[in-house]
Amino acid sequence: MILHVPSLERLVNELSKLPGIGPKTAQRLGYYVLRSTSEYNEALQLALEGVRKSVHECPKCFSFTENQSLCFYCEDQNRLDDTICVVEDPADIARFDSSGAFKGRYHVLHGAISPLEGILPKDIRLQPLLERIQNENIKEVILALDADLEGDTTVLYISKQLHGKGVKLSRIAHGIPIGGDIDYIDFRTLGRAIENRVEI
Amino acid sequence: MILHVPSLERLVNELSKLPGIGPKTAQRLGYYVLRSTSEYNEALQLALEGVRKSVHECPKCFSFTENQSLCFYCEDQNRLDDTICVVEDPADIARFDSSGAFKGRYHVLHGAISPLEGILPKDIRLQPLLERIQNENIKEVILALDADLEGDTTVLYISKQLHGKGVKLSRIAHGIPIGGDIDYIDFRTLGRAIENRVEI
Repeated sequence: MILHVPSLERLVNELSKLPGIGPKTAQRLGYYVLRSTSEYNEALQLALEGVRKSVHECPKCFSFTENQSLCFYCEDQNRLDDTICVVEDPADIARFDSSGAFKGRYHVLHGAISPLEGILPKDIRLQPLLERIQNENIKEVILALDADLEGDTTVLYISKQLHGKGVKLSRIAHGIPIGGDIDYIDFRTLGRAIENRVEI
Repeated sequence: MILHVPSLERLVNELSKLPGIGPKTAQRLGYYVLRSTSEYNEALQLALEGVRKSVHECPKCFSFTENQSLCFYCEDQNRLDDTICVVEDPADIARFDSSGAFKGRYHVLHGAISPLEGILPKDIRLQPLLERIQNENIKEVILALDADLEGDTTVLYISKQLHGKGVKLSRIAHGIPIGGDIDYIDFRTLGRAIENRVEI
């Protein structure tokens, strides 16, 4: 569908590059922005600029931060210093942290090992993790990685690297979600739920 | 969920104001923008600025345009000058035009009459439409308004205004969509489809 307004078409085109936004939704959003106040347009523009100019990776855990030195999670005084939760994406940190079940430090790998896609251990933040475990005298490492081939490969790699170093290594439990109905759970998850059964 | 990155939270907040974008989607989009190249971020920002600075309403039909004088549809030489299709939103024009069934001029009301919401005839572009019909010697007016209470009210108002002025007035057909299964069509649409039956 040709809109005959070049800058609107350009905006629609850029919006359709966002994940989960198809051409129809992009068009609806484009028209919404066009009809909205110029204050909203400007606020959105400034927010994009703010993210681009102020947010960078924390030099220690590689999560996103605006702080000059360390991020919120690395600076926080009320956390266990000898426990690290390893995640693939910075977005995962806020999710685990809001669960309230973990009060240690975090480390973001920014991906997972995937030989198929050419992502090797050196392409993610694995070396800095191993250095942190050694230098910060870490006692427990919790791997909160995805339950897919890449996650499994990464877990295997890290467990080999840490073998015999006296660090307690664990992986988050995979099983049936709270409130989940067994009828709708796939058989791999059911298998994992039985394997990892918890004694009462 | 607190993200502990103020400019990311600001971006997520602005994105969640878009239609159909809830807080979770806004967060996913925010993180996507953060992880994407700064080129993409900048392109999106410039596209927003482009829309804000270059797009305005056509002084004749009130659709969106970047042209200095009239819009694409008003300037086009290959259209019937004596037929006007009246729509509620600028986005509707591209939809009707891509159907190829109409090759006349357009007029955007920017809304529909809605006494309940306090939108009166003077709040939409109705007066300019009546002026155009008179000044441009329009022979046929097609009302392509939504099939809701506001659309019906607006159709009634316009038909009263044009009564006895020798202008052919019609409304787009409401009925069963092409490919639509009668099982799944609501009874109001079915009723309208029978009322407006077409002789073979």
